Amino acid sequence: MTASISKSQPSPAPGDALLIVDVQNDFLSGGSLAVSNGEAVIAILNRYLDIFSKQCLPIFATRDWHPANHCSFKQQGGPWPEHCVAQTFGAEFPPALNLSETTQIISKATHMDQEAYSGFQNTDLDSRLKSQRVRRLFIGGLATDYCVLNTVKDALKLGYTVNLLQDAIRAVNLNPEDGEQALQEMRNLDCRFCKLNDLQPKATPSAALNTDFYQLTMMQVYFDQDMNDIAVFEFYVRELPPGRGFLLAAGLEQVLDYLENLRFASQDLQWMRDSGFFSNNFVDSLAEFRFTGDVHAMPEGSVFFPNEPILRITAPLPQAQLVETRIINILQFQVMIASKAARIVLSAPGKNLIDFGLRRAHGAEAGLFAARASYIAGFTGTATVSAGALWDIPLFGTMAHSFIQAHDDETQAFENFAHSHPDNVIFLLDTYDNENAAHKIVDLAPRLKQEGINIRGVRLDSGDLQNHARKVRKILNTGGLDKIMIFASGDLDEIKVRDFESCKAPIDGYGIGTRLATSADAPMLNCAYKLQEYAGIPRRKLSEGKSTLPGRKQVFRNFSTDHKMMGDILALDKEDLEGKPLLESFMLRGERCRPQASLREIRERANQELKHLPEPLRSLKKDSFYPVEISDSLNKLAQSLAKTFQSR
Amino acid sequence: MTASISKSQPSPAPGDALLIVDVQNDFLSGGSLAVSNGEAVIAILNRYLDIFSKQCLPIFATRDWHPANHCSFKQQGGPWPEHCVAQTFGAEFPPALNLSETTQIISKATHMDQEAYSGFQNTDLDSRLKSQRVRRLFIGGLATDYCVLNTVKDALKLGYTVNLLQDAIRAVNLNPEDGEQALQEMRNLDCRFCKLNDLQPKATPSAALNTDFYQLTMMQVYFDQDMNDIAVFEFYVRELPPGRGFLLAAGLEQVLDYLENLRFASQDLQWMRDSGFFSNNFVDSLAEFRFTGDVHAMPEGSVFFPNEPILRITAPLPQAQLVETRIINILQFQVMIASKAARIVLSAPGKNLIDFGLRRAHGAEAGLFAARASYIAGFTGTATVSAGALWDIPLFGTMAHSFIQAHDDETQAFENFAHSHPDNVIFLLDTYDNENAAHKIVDLAPRLKQEGINIRGVRLDSGDLQNHARKVRKILNTGGLDKIMIFASGDLDEIKVRDFESCKAPIDGYGIGTRLATSADAPMLNCAYKLQEYAGIPRRKLSEGKSTLPGRKQVFRNFSTDHKMMGDILALDKEDLEGKPLLESFMLRGERCRPQASLREIRERANQELKHLPEPLRSLKKDSFYPVEISDSLNKLAQSLAKTFQSR
Repeated sequence: MTASISKSQPSPAPGDALLIVDVQNDFLSGGSLAVSNGEAVIAILNRYLDIFSKQCLPIFATRDWHPANHCSFKQQGGPWPEHCVAQTFGAEFPPALNLSETTQIISKATHMDQEAYSGFQNTDLDSRLKSQRVRRLFIGGLATDYCVLNTVKDALKLGYTVNLLQDAIRAVNLNPEDGEQALQEMRNLDCRFCKLNDLQPKATPSAALNTDFYQLTMMQVYFDQDMNDIAVFEFYVRELPPGRGFLLAAGLEQVLDYLENLRFASQDLQWMRDSGFFSNNFVDSLAEFRFTGDVHAMPEGSVFFPNEPILRITAPLPQAQLVETRIINILQFQVMIASKAARIVLSAPGKNLIDFGLRRAHGAEAGLFAARASYIAGFTGTATVSAGALWDIPLFGTMAHSFIQAHDDETQAFENFAHSHPDNVIFLLDTYDNENAAHKIVDLAPRLKQEGINIRGVRLDSGDLQNHARKVRKILNTGGLDKIMIFASGDLDEIKVRDFESCKAPIDGYGIGTRLATSADAPMLNCAYKLQEYAGIPRRKLSEGKSTLPGRKQVFRNFSTDHKMMGDILALDKEDLEGKPLLESFMLRGERCRPQASLREIRERANQELKHLPEPLRSLKKDSFYPVEISDSLNKLAQSLAKTFQSR
Repeated sequence: MTASISKSQPSPAPGDALLIVDVQNDFLSGGSLAVSNGEAVIAILNRYLDIFSKQCLPIFATRDWHPANHCSFKQQGGPWPEHCVAQTFGAEFPPALNLSETTQIISKATHMDQEAYSGFQNTDLDSRLKSQRVRRLFIGGLATDYCVLNTVKDALKLGYTVNLLQDAIRAVNLNPEDGEQALQEMRNLDCRFCKLNDLQPKATPSAALNTDFYQLTMMQVYFDQDMNDIAVFEFYVRELPPGRGFLLAAGLEQVLDYLENLRFASQDLQWMRDSGFFSNNFVDSLAEFRFTGDVHAMPEGSVFFPNEPILRITAPLPQAQLVETRIINILQFQVMIASKAARIVLSAPGKNLIDFGLRRAHGAEAGLFAARASYIAGFTGTATVSAGALWDIPLFGTMAHSFIQAHDDETQAFENFAHSHPDNVIFLLDTYDNENAAHKIVDLAPRLKQEGINIRGVRLDSGDLQNHARKVRKILNTGGLDKIMIFASGDLDEIKVRDFESCKAPIDGYGIGTRLATSADAPMLNCAYKLQEYAGIPRRKLSEGKSTLPGRKQVFRNFSTDHKMMGDILALDKEDLEGKPLLESFMLRGERCRPQASLREIRERANQELKHLPEPLRSLKKDSFYPVEISDSLNKLAQSLAKTFQSR
């Protein structure tokens, strides 16, 4: 049942170096001491060189660098023909070997009476490695049974971890088993072996694998059984989180983007093949996988209620199945945050509201999506830089406590900040003492004013915010600084904000982080993406407490004469009922069928929708009720299917 | 205070096509009707061609394709010299224009007595575009004041949205203002104008911008003030979530990876320049930004308690500042999930525990991290495919309700699955009725057995799980299927699991999703990353309820004779106290100083740590207390700094 593929991964990292042993002309075809097929290592070594140089890791190359009368030569009574004489062609590295200028060359056996197979013997290789903090060596080159073997042995003796590049070595094999014996000897000494493939960093799976394993196992069955008919799935929220009165649609743009770009990358397919869970035919078929279905949805920024689908996927079953996990993953989070943010917006009309949530959001994407969803709901901006850079959401922020602490003097910290950011001066007051700091600001303001710098605001971040805000306001006003705005942050949510607002605390803006970005009071929605129709036949699930309403659906909304939402009817798509149909087409046959709405347009839609909420919902009254009827036809269909399926 | 950079973005997308007008030899230098500097459009058009072909969007090229005696030629009384005669060199596209084989060629003005400036005139261009569902055209080529102008006008008339490629057109300018007038005419008709730069998709910001805006504004000040001294920041959790007794360290690997690879990409720097918030000198300096500091930490899988730092960053102030946001973002989430998962593991000793959380996790990264953190804590595996592919975490999963629903017959659904996955047969029972389905399995099992297929388990996913498990167990056992395992899923957490276990419900494994991946009872930790020392001087923040303990710290842990954890001492790093020091060095001067631990090693460490928890903590007793003392030296330092800073 497990698809785990274990592979030890020696991917090069800081602390690693590549060491190429004696790849020199004399050891290649045509050379005076040619190793059989020695030149075959060059192409592979170039790939290793590429990997190490891309990561800026040290690269060493050793070379025999003999005097003309070296003791290893036959004419001097040694075992070898004359080879690798310093400064001769035979001693040069072959031009095909891509050594760069930064390669560190180690010459060895440079004295007449000194033989040296190992790159460490009478060289400064060890000290150079140590000074560059190398602890692990990747060694390849020529020849396995002499210089490679001895270099590896010395490296191990000196305490290095060694990975032998198994595909980038060749043996002399004076005796046919010499190479094999050398490998065995190194293995016995705990030398590790690796190949090019092991070193290439594992390719990150693509978004196609952002899914549950069962989607893939089901797709295998659909493939085997040719179940490619059109399926209709709908995403909806089953019930409101406790205390909430409505939901705000968000996340559709990311869903469309996901569907539009959904491809299985080659590394995904390779992983699937290696896993042993899937047939090759099936995996091969995924190379051509594209989403070719239709998407109907409520536009982002729409208000909606439980059981109302906000997204409908109509696509061949395998496609509609695969995308379930990521669609829920995107929509539940953005809906949850937009809905939470809308409550905060309604609690503090006209105030500046800034998302401070990235650090406590659940991962980077959650931080990014929280910035987007809260902006849609009416927040003024965010502190999350990537969200500003990606979507032009206005960015806010000035300084942290550490900034004040890093200065020996608080006023100096304020002043330094003002000089670097004369147009964006907001001071954090609570590092040591709020009111004390406020007095410093009163002293500092005229000095800055002379330089043409206006203080725009102060921020309070701890303690009894309301109390501090009143005291600080008083100090600032007494000092003639009634234009300076007061921002508050620290563990805020819509309940606290509403309390501050209702007792008219002198706070001009709120930074809201953790409780917004995690939707702390309701960190999940009871939501689902369910099959409602397959091959033209409506489908229904009857699980206890989780039964579904079958068929393709539409939501019709009715308004009072003063444009307030009055009630919705959940109906079959083919019905033609009174009211405004809320689901519209966004993608047909895999392609977007309407221009992308800008984030500002979506935000304005949300603003209008919130305006048209019934008053009890707008004022966040607990247990406010909004009527959602189920149409007669839908009810009848559900009942008839209950009978059909219970008998299955 | 806002750094919003607004730019309308007509990035090509499905529904768009590129239309190149009459870039032919005769209209280029040396041609019979050369447009001044006409060849300048080729290089730019090649860039546009590249963008459109990379996105597999349709590309059209029109050409004049005249008969030798065309009415527009002077010798026939027309206004132009002979040009673009079909099949001649002058009518060919220049080889430098990178038209591929898939370019759709539209020949126009092919009859003697028919002039056609517009690509739509007497051609099938419109019908071809419509059949390819093109709704927006990007038009460039030659010449602005004739064929481009008339093609654009027809396109607008036919209802296309048109973007004129302003940098890829040239005018004939018989009268010097002709080109300008043509542009004005198109503008008046609501033609849009764009340049290459507008079309290039906005580069995604790199991980360096996964940070709060104030980190960047503070760094600007540090740059201006040359504040580059060494800062020491520590990450710790201030207090336990309600009802929890201990925490489990996780996420260090992702922090190290982030620090190791932290670079400002060119798009990040460009964004910073464009934002207008930063000085060019400062932005330029960031091109060379690297993290060069030290990291000390508790190894992943360590048990820890409030106020104990699990990570210490020692680095030049700007570096240590920038990384705050992402470090908290990574650590709080993984610690939170690992700690939650550990409670579940302790609640169900020996049972299979599978993470089902991706769909309700807060974004893709949260799902991935939740799989990792729960595996560290002792979960058996996950359903999240990307986590299996990335980290070799065992994957689990078989089928969803939609799979059953898509079949007309439940038994047929089971059978089809078994045939496609003979080694991984676990059936979902609750789509219509659990016990009914269990009886079907009893009938099916012998048939499958004959084919050599063993059913491994069944899954219950709704209703009263304990009750259903007992009934299903009985049905299966009566049918001779006592080897089949029963898995339960659906809104589970450690409380429910413990209840099932304590009343010995016949459940062999649990799939735990939402409440694990969101840590639903405590979706955030009260945690911080705080400056404890700068330029060799300990620092302290005194904010109400959020004051810090200053200085570089170490945690010493003492054990009883039976190896149970007995108590910790939070001390200064330089102190040498009894007990095992828990913080170790992981990175020195920006480089990892120890080999990366495998996920299995980390998981085994967590397993050992949980074994050595004091019994009240192991059994998840509420209000269990674990003693963490503060050393005298640390206490004294804190008190002395309180005096120093209060006077600031």
